[in-house]
Amino acid sequence: MISPALLKEFRVVLGHENVLTDMADLVTYSYDAAVLEPVVPAIALRPVSGKALSQVVRLCNENRLPLTVRGAGTNLSGGTIPSPEGVVVLTNALNKILEINPEDMYAVVQPGVVTAQLAASVEAQGLFYPPDPGSQAVSTIGGNVAENAGGLRGLKYGVTRDYVMKLEFFDVNGEPVITGSKTVKCATGYNLAGLLVGSEGTLGVFNEITLKLIPPPASQKAMFAVFDHIDKASETVAAIIANRIVPATLEFLDNFTIRAVEDFSRAGLPVDAAALLLIEVDGHPAQVEEDAAKVESLCRKMGATSIRVAKDAAERDKVWEARRSALSALAKLKPTVVLEDATVPRSKIPDMVRAMQNISRKFDILIGTFGHAGDGNLHPTILTDRRDKAEWQRVESAIDAIFDKALALGGTLSGEHGIGTAKSHYLEKETGKATIVYSRRIKAALDPNNILNPGKIIGY
Amino acid sequence: MISPALLKEFRVVLGHENVLTDMADLVTYSYDAAVLEPVVPAIALRPVSGKALSQVVRLCNENRLPLTVRGAGTNLSGGTIPSPEGVVVLTNALNKILEINPEDMYAVVQPGVVTAQLAASVEAQGLFYPPDPGSQAVSTIGGNVAENAGGLRGLKYGVTRDYVMKLEFFDVNGEPVITGSKTVKCATGYNLAGLLVGSEGTLGVFNEITLKLIPPPASQKAMFAVFDHIDKASETVAAIIANRIVPATLEFLDNFTIRAVEDFSRAGLPVDAAALLLIEVDGHPAQVEEDAAKVESLCRKMGATSIRVAKDAAERDKVWEARRSALSALAKLKPTVVLEDATVPRSKIPDMVRAMQNISRKFDILIGTFGHAGDGNLHPTILTDRRDKAEWQRVESAIDAIFDKALALGGTLSGEHGIGTAKSHYLEKETGKATIVYSRRIKAALDPNNILNPGKIIGY
Repeated sequence: MISPALLKEFRVVLGHENVLTDMADLVTYSYDAAVLEPVVPAIALRPVSGKALSQVVRLCNENRLPLTVRGAGTNLSGGTIPSPEGVVVLTNALNKILEINPEDMYAVVQPGVVTAQLAASVEAQGLFYPPDPGSQAVSTIGGNVAENAGGLRGLKYGVTRDYVMKLEFFDVNGEPVITGSKTVKCATGYNLAGLLVGSEGTLGVFNEITLKLIPPPASQKAMFAVFDHIDKASETVAAIIANRIVPATLEFLDNFTIRAVEDFSRAGLPVDAAALLLIEVDGHPAQVEEDAAKVESLCRKMGATSIRVAKDAAERDKVWEARRSALSALAKLKPTVVLEDATVPRSKIPDMVRAMQNISRKFDILIGTFGHAGDGNLHPTILTDRRDKAEWQRVESAIDAIFDKALALGGTLSGEHGIGTAKSHYLEKETGKATIVYSRRIKAALDPNNILNPGKIIGY
Repeated sequence: MISPALLKEFRVVLGHENVLTDMADLVTYSYDAAVLEPVVPAIALRPVSGKALSQVVRLCNENRLPLTVRGAGTNLSGGTIPSPEGVVVLTNALNKILEINPEDMYAVVQPGVVTAQLAASVEAQGLFYPPDPGSQAVSTIGGNVAENAGGLRGLKYGVTRDYVMKLEFFDVNGEPVITGSKTVKCATGYNLAGLLVGSEGTLGVFNEITLKLIPPPASQKAMFAVFDHIDKASETVAAIIANRIVPATLEFLDNFTIRAVEDFSRAGLPVDAAALLLIEVDGHPAQVEEDAAKVESLCRKMGATSIRVAKDAAERDKVWEARRSALSALAKLKPTVVLEDATVPRSKIPDMVRAMQNISRKFDILIGTFGHAGDGNLHPTILTDRRDKAEWQRVESAIDAIFDKALALGGTLSGEHGIGTAKSHYLEKETGKATIVYSRRIKAALDPNNILNPGKIIGY
């Protein structure tokens, strides 16, 4: 319960209009994109300055109020679901790009800046911010950093972690912790920025984020290759990587996903294909020509029935938009959509794709598989109806089977969606007990009252 | 004091021959490459297996014995100097490359593997491990990870941190903590690997390190540009970066360093030059040609008096060997050599180079300046004699002035050498108090008896 005195204090710190207690508002902040029970918070707060944010954190700690920071709520593992009687802290008023420095190639932003807006602003200055999570049109940089968001370009360009140079965040007392530097190299103090990236709001609250920018590639070429058997497509992925070609993007779609996407986006995808690879190479024009030719020849050698090269930027954009719509397209088909992201070493993609087909058959459930095959990060997407208890039990068994297979292949539970609450009970299977004990020691030391997004990643 | 019972236990765990108590041995492990007082440990232990290593850690913790892991002892900030009455744990028997996986492009190594040996083994399989600290011929991967070692290629290829995919280490109880994955992407659990990299042995003891490998560049071109004024050289560095060219290496040498290196290596460097830039571009041959032409034209525009392109690999290697000998060459000139690595945003290199000349004049001390100018990471090297008390005081004032200037320019205390004990009292100036408090909370939680390389980075 939030006492009237505390409510008053929040209003003084934030202004009346930034303290939300209406049920209609609170319900909006009760869920994210994971298939989990919503939890309605007690209050939602919208700080408009770093100072106000710091005070909110301090007040929550002093009053033992669990606090969950919320960007756009696109989280796929429950990381944004608040605690019962907890506080949701909104970052949408902390949405300023504070600096884009083209000389030293970095950007300084507040946590609520929308990913795609940053990317566009950076592009306008002739630079490139590569991480491009599927939700980039609405997701925030703060959320991306908290989740270590990936995206389609992870294969060549890495993920959010690889772009965080410096991080200013508040500890649980609202004190400012500064880690990293605007310099290209930094070996000063503990790499707290590295620890905070992907910590899902459990160790601190971001105030200012400095991101590395890079020169954009001089040219690109996108193509799609059609396969009449799913194995041929997955083996082509492994072959491209084994041939030391590093495409900017190398995406896989199975027939089920292709049909759903085409139905949704009308992008002209071949609905009869057993599987499709969407490939983009970029870099120096000569490199692009060579890589594209190599990729094309590999695809043919591995049995692609046809290959289509996007003839211009418009056609290219159309293909990528279609790919980005995959989750939305699949989500239309059934009431409940479970999007997983178990990830395997890249050479194991053919095994993983086969395993997914077996799991779908064995548990008699619908799985559309697509994703970032080039980096081993598939998104098996289970279409179901959670109200159907019998089927839901089979879904849960299938998810167990997917994780077991990924781990058996030397993989990991999550490539980019995080652990949240959805996967925290699987964590020990991958890391062993000592890793969780070690992690909990850190959490308890930094957040002794357990108010920073409690329960996420390492449970309670 | 190590009790006879504990000594016996160490001998059982490790074998008699791996428990070293001779003063001649112990003195060898009393210092590293930083200018600090040596500290003779009570004992040195050489585990030959992960299991033995784990037991050593556990025994040290149970007996409250401070433990310092030592690779090659090339540390430049005192991180390898043991505690009085402490234990040195040697990794030279843990020197196996456990796996090089060319398909999924990673290597798994024990901490005692020598950097250059790994690089050569990887190269033999047609792959590339980029981090190349100056001490790579003897430094170990474990030491590189503990210090987040950089090197000449940091500008384009990043530093050790960017290559650690997975880390298995022992917590202070000797329990195995597993973090990261052999997959390209991983968002599973806290990024403990990120935290451990650069933690200077204070949070855990490495057992197995999985490193990312990449395809090697198809071609390279190295050149050196001669300048008759130091400012012209430093401004050329800023101009190259501002023109969005990312060389693999972009090194700076002032006249003092050039003469010392030439005297030492006879590589044919122009001893009359005020400053020299050593530049290598790599990548696709067409890219290399274009970048090399652009760099050459920029150098001329900025006033280079001559530019020499290495005509073959032999000539190129000769230049790089000469550059790598800079520290040794300078070290010959005076009894005491202090190598700093304050780092600034790249556009500030001209300011930093000028500041170094002023500091040298103001405090009347010899400073040779060279280093990784392309990533803002200069190595001002002070030549002195520590026994000369008056001069040593001026040296200490000069070091203060160097750090103050770097911070004033938006830089950092250390680009790649770490904080150790040499710079820990400067840390608060850069990060503020709360960052140190936050870091100490982590340290105290993970190492309650403060036995893991105590005093390093965050003091006591």
